[in-house]
Parts: sequence; C-alpha cells; structure tokens
Amino acid sequence: MNTAQPAKRIHSFHPPQRTLLGPGPSDIHPRTIAAMGQPVVGYLDPIFVEMMDELKTLLRYAYRTENALTFPGSGPGSVGMETCFVNLVEPGDKVIVCRNGVFGGRMIENVERCGGTPVVVEDAWGEPVDPQKVEDAFKAHPDARILAFIQAETSTGCASDARTLAALAHRFGALSIVDAVTSLGGSELRVDEWGLDAVYSGSQKCLSCTPGLTPLTFSEAALARIKARRHKVQSWFMDLNLVLEYWGNTKRTYHHTAPINGLYALHEALLLLREEGIDNAWTRHQRHHAALKAGLEAIGLRFVVREASRLPQMNAVYIPEGINDLDVRRRLLADFNLEIGAGLGPLAGKVWRFGLMGYSCRAENVMLCLSALGSVLADMGYPVEVGHAEAAAHAVYAAQHAEAARNKHK
Amino acid sequence: MNTAQPAKRIHSFHPPQRTLLGPGPSDIHPRTIAAMGQPVVGYLDPIFVEMMDELKTLLRYAYRTENALTFPGSGPGSVGMETCFVNLVEPGDKVIVCRNGVFGGRMIENVERCGGTPVVVEDAWGEPVDPQKVEDAFKAHPDARILAFIQAETSTGCASDARTLAALAHRFGALSIVDAVTSLGGSELRVDEWGLDAVYSGSQKCLSCTPGLTPLTFSEAALARIKARRHKVQSWFMDLNLVLEYWGNTKRTYHHTAPINGLYALHEALLLLREEGIDNAWTRHQRHHAALKAGLEAIGLRFVVREASRLPQMNAVYIPEGINDLDVRRRLLADFNLEIGAGLGPLAGKVWRFGLMGYSCRAENVMLCLSALGSVLADMGYPVEVGHAEAAAHAVYAAQHAEAARNKHK
Repeated sequence: MNTAQPAKRIHSFHPPQRTLLGPGPSDIHPRTIAAMGQPVVGYLDPIFVEMMDELKTLLRYAYRTENALTFPGSGPGSVGMETCFVNLVEPGDKVIVCRNGVFGGRMIENVERCGGTPVVVEDAWGEPVDPQKVEDAFKAHPDARILAFIQAETSTGCASDARTLAALAHRFGALSIVDAVTSLGGSELRVDEWGLDAVYSGSQKCLSCTPGLTPLTFSEAALARIKARRHKVQSWFMDLNLVLEYWGNTKRTYHHTAPINGLYALHEALLLLREEGIDNAWTRHQRHHAALKAGLEAIGLRFVVREASRLPQMNAVYIPEGINDLDVRRRLLADFNLEIGAGLGPLAGKVWRFGLMGYSCRAENVMLCLSALGSVLADMGYPVEVGHAEAAAHAVYAAQHAEAARNKHK
Repeated sequence: MNTAQPAKRIHSFHPPQRTLLGPGPSDIHPRTIAAMGQPVVGYLDPIFVEMMDELKTLLRYAYRTENALTFPGSGPGSVGMETCFVNLVEPGDKVIVCRNGVFGGRMIENVERCGGTPVVVEDAWGEPVDPQKVEDAFKAHPDARILAFIQAETSTGCASDARTLAALAHRFGALSIVDAVTSLGGSELRVDEWGLDAVYSGSQKCLSCTPGLTPLTFSEAALARIKARRHKVQSWFMDLNLVLEYWGNTKRTYHHTAPINGLYALHEALLLLREEGIDNAWTRHQRHHAALKAGLEAIGLRFVVREASRLPQMNAVYIPEGINDLDVRRRLLADFNLEIGAGLGPLAGKVWRFGLMGYSCRAENVMLCLSALGSVLADMGYPVEVGHAEAAAHAVYAAQHAEAARNKHK
C-alpha cells in the first residue's frame, strides 16, 4: 500500500473572485464573510446559545412568522426538504406532491422513501402549479394528509401561489410542506398570513450566506402532527424530537455539533436582511429583475416562464438556436469571472438561468451580465449589437429613478 | 400578527477568543480560517471541481487508504454515522453493535431506524470493546452482516482495538462500520491495513476544521454491498448512489449544493496535516497528552480509562468529591476563556473531559489548562498547590526534549 505522498503536489487553494449569477450559491456580503471567520466557540457556550436565540428571532422575521419552531438546520436545502418529509410523513400516508420542475421530483422521492404514497399533480416545466388540479386531487384522495409543493421552482424560475395552495390543503384537512429555498428573502413569503405548515429554505440563495444551512419553520399544527406520530422518525439526525433538545427553548443538550462558523455567517446575513427590511429586499429583486429582463429581451432571448409567474431572482431564458450552451458559459467564466446557471434535466443545454439573488442582486451585476453576454454572443456570430442590452437596462433603471424622485417630491 | 421588529435589539455577533479544550470543536488554525473566508464559487466551477479531487486525495492520506470512495459528506459526524448505516443496513439485517459510551447507543438507534436488528455487545463506560464478547456475538449470530463500533469513544476517552475488531468481522463474513470521529488525525488509524469497511469522522476534532463536515471512506466490499441492495436507501440526501453523481470520478452532476467555504477550510486543514505528516501528528498528540496527564495527576485527578486504552486527544478524569462541576467550568470560561468538556449521560457532573485535538493540542494550551484549573480549584478550597501541575507537565516536556536531543545526536 502506498499512501505516503500523493503524486500531484497540492497547494493551498485560492479561488478566483467570481460574480455568481447562477442558481446559487450567490455572492456573499463582505460582512457575512467576516462574521464567518471569527474564532470558533463551543456549541454550548453561553455566548453562543444567546446567539442561537437571536438567530431564531431573525429567521422568524425573514419568514414572517411567530412559529416557535423556527431554526437553521445543519445541512443544505435538501436536508431541509428531507427533515420536513421524514418528520411529517408516516408509512402509508398519502401525500399530494406538485411537480413542475426538478424539485417536485425530489419531493416524490422523499415521500416514497418515507413509506408514503405520493399522489402526483403534474404541471409542465415552466408552468405554475395549477390549484384546480390540486383541488381535484384532494377530491379524488380525501384521505391525503399533506400537500407538498415548491413555491419558487429553481429549475425553471417559476413561482406558484403558495397562499392559495396552502389554503386548499387546510380546506381538505391537510398540512402543507413548502419549498422556499429560492424564495426566502427574494420574493414575497408570509408563513403565518398564508398559513404554511412546514417550510424549508437554503442559506446560499437570497440570504447570500455560505451554503450548508437550511432555515426551517413549523406551525403548531405541524408540530402537533410530529408529536402524535405512531412510528419513530426514520432519520436519527433529522428527528425533530431530538434536534429540539438542542434548538428548543428548554435546557439545551447536545444533539450534534452545530456548524458554528456557518451560523455566525447566517446571523450576519439575516441582520443585513433586517437592516434593509424584508419588503425592501423583495422590491430590490423586482427592480433589478426588470432591468435584467429588458436587457435579455433586447438581446432577443425569450423567457421560459410567462410574465405573471416569473421569479425575479431566477430568470430562465431559452438559448438561441445555433449557440452552444457550454461555449458561452465557459467564455463568461474565463473572460469575465461570471457564473450563470445551466439548465437542469430536460432543460439541460436548452436554457440559461440567470440568478439575481441576495447580495448578487445589484445594478453592477446586471450591467456586467448583459455586457459580458452581449459581447460573447456577438463574438460567436449571434446578431446582437454590443451595448444594446445595457442601454435597455439603463432605460429601466432611469425610469425607476425618475419614479422614485417623483414619489419623493409628492 | 406582529413580526415587524423583534423586541430585543440584535447586533452583529462577536464571539470571544476561547481556548477550546473540550470534546470539539477544537481551535481552528489561522490558515484554515483564512481559507474559509475566501470568495464563494459555484459547486460545479471547474476550479472547484479540481479542488474536490485534491480533497479526496488529502482525505485518503489522512485515512491511510486508497479507497476510491473517500470524500467529505455535507454534515456533522452524525450525518457520517447515518450515511454508513442507511447505505449498508437493509430491513431485517442483523448488526452487531458495540456500546461502551454515548455513541454506541446512537449506532443502535441508527440500526433500528433502518429496520435492522441490533445485537448489542455491552462494555462498561470507560472500558474498551472486548473482542471476546464480539466473537461470542458472531458465534451466536452467524448471520450478522455488519459489526459496528467506535474506535475512539468521545464520551469517555477510551480507544478500542479497531484492527482486531475489523478482522473479527471479516472472519465471520461481515463488514465493519467504524466511528473515527475523534481519532482521525489524532491517533493511529489505518483504514486499508486494518481492513475497515465504512469509516466516518468529523471535521471539528483532530482535523481542527470548522464543524459541519464528515470525512467518509468506503472499501470496495462496502461499495459492492451498497450496489447490491434490495431496497432503496431510505434517505435521499445520504443515498451514496446519488451523492456519487457529484463526488464520484465520472461526469459531475448536481446533487445538493456543497458547503463551499467549509470545503475550502477542510482542504487547508488537511494540507496542514500532510505538511506535519500524519505520524508526526499522532506523536504530537501523545507528547502533549503525557504532559497534561502528569499535570492532572499532580492535581490528584484520576482518569476514567485505564492507561492502555486512553486516547491522547480526549482525557476524561473524575471530578473530585465536593467540587461543583458547573462552577469550575464557568470560572474557567469566564476568567480564562478556557472551555473544557462536561460529562455526558451517566457521567454528567461526574467527569471532566479535556480535549487536546488538532490545533488545540499545543504546549501553551496544556500549560494554560493546568494553570487555570489549578488556580480555580485552589480558590475553591481544593487542596492543590498552585504551580504544582505546571511543574509536573514541565518535567515531562523537559524529558521529551532531552530524549529528542539524544536521538538527534546519536
């Protein structure tokens, strides 16, 4: 056996400074990076425990909820998803799952692996979940105990109407599991007002925090369902009955070692969000989306999702005929340090996904993106006048400024 | 509903600089902290993918293995544990689990939640796993498919003989699942030479990296077992068949967003380990353990584990009669910014656990620890002469230096 020294010499790793306009991670604010680099303390250090309480308060602010059970799970968004399913689904449970992109499919997998029976409501990729189909599914399966859907489908950039869907679930005596990975902090999400029961998100999208944390919130009804389970939760790590011994309000006891530095970062990222104000953050995503959209359309690119259902923070457009997906993305990365997102699943090679999430969602990034894309496409012989897209975005910003000035002087 | 502003004003969080001599997290090396704070890049960025390959190489070095399937899982050590169990245990499988502390108990939970049948081999807390009992268990249950044990029991500081136990498993046609959370990087661990099949660890112990990552390695036999499963792995997130689409050697595809900054940190932490040399790291833990032990014994403290089975990186000693556990730990934290570990389970309030892990394992920390503990205990009326423990540790270091000088001039 030879494990003495690897053949290739390995040095310290120094990544370049990218601009991240893909599906996440998004750029991290310097304050958040600095927070993360602070000295590690113990996971039961009284000073840390105090910070955990602040984190829960800040997360409630971001989620627009007063749910006691609101905390950051120690894992990526897919751990958030699985935490919701393993705790709320019992063997034999019927779960209505809405699929209109990649992540609905992942939900189906989760239901099956929990021993549940998924009832799938299908909508086309790029279409929002159709509430009528959900209602029909509930009528056909009145014993369904849960409705699960994606509020903001990252694979297509499509928003579904979480309020209407959650209300349907309640009407039929079911709870809702809602994927808010891409929505939290980027577009309207009101957990209490809309009556959502179990919601998970990710740290690396519109919160612009380091990847690897999953904000979670559960209504009283969801918690009651978990406490009334007949079977043990199949995951030890994600069993909320155990996790709560650490994150709950009573005496804290060890469950697993929390990702301390990541939690420092999340605290600062949520503080930045609260300083800006959640409504202002939602508006900011809309403003820059409008400018990006004008620029992309000036280039001649067509959106996957129709206007009414478009997510401002995730813009999926079709790749023009004759243009090679990978060539363009490689050029953007190599020449401009700019990352944009590729298509997933059936949309691979067919669409680009432009994320404008959290700290990435800034005018300088919109202009860089349009400028870089215009120049790369022109180089490849695509009929676009360099500077045209930037002019279109500029016009949108100018109009926004004029309106802001008018409103100010009213 | 009122979620406008939390009542309490929340500011940026600034933790103090602690010295961490508990059960982990350990102090993080400045280079590792700096690596973590570098700009985030996409999880499929070619530059990042190259770093992932280096990470796997470095982990193979640390684990002393050539296992292809060696990578850092996205979660704490308990995700590592659960990843091993959900992938290797199928419903109905019999698993021999050795329990001699907290973490064996967690393994039993894992087996049960996977639908397996645990056959428990019990040893007293503080005693190593008795190979004779394991052999007897295999003889009584020749159909057992897996042997699971903790190499380094963090709750007591006891080492078990991983080589002998793994050989027993193979003799009876079973695979081994080995918890190396506290051993990796701190005491001898040779995955290939000892024939271990599935091994997990944590980033925040002797690797002195940020918490939240779990180095994993699987033998060919373990991988074959996983590929031959009759049932789907019950966890979507931990299903190695899926995780490998991202971490495997073929074309990388999205599974979940990797904890990018944490992985930067792990890369640097492993580089530090390789620069030191794994054997040198093992020796360093022994050297400082000897000094700490001399000091603790000079104070009159008695070890939980007998000498032959003591882990150098985790020193559990009984709290003297009449001394209040919490008072001492609070004083150490408040006056000296020093964290030591409390007892877990039946040992709560009865023992202290002094960790000397990774970057925390340094002479200055040993001396600080003895000095702080001596002075706090003296203050509380415990009969100890201040300076006595430091002198005992000093004598050990002086002897080590003298021997090193002799060896050098030979």
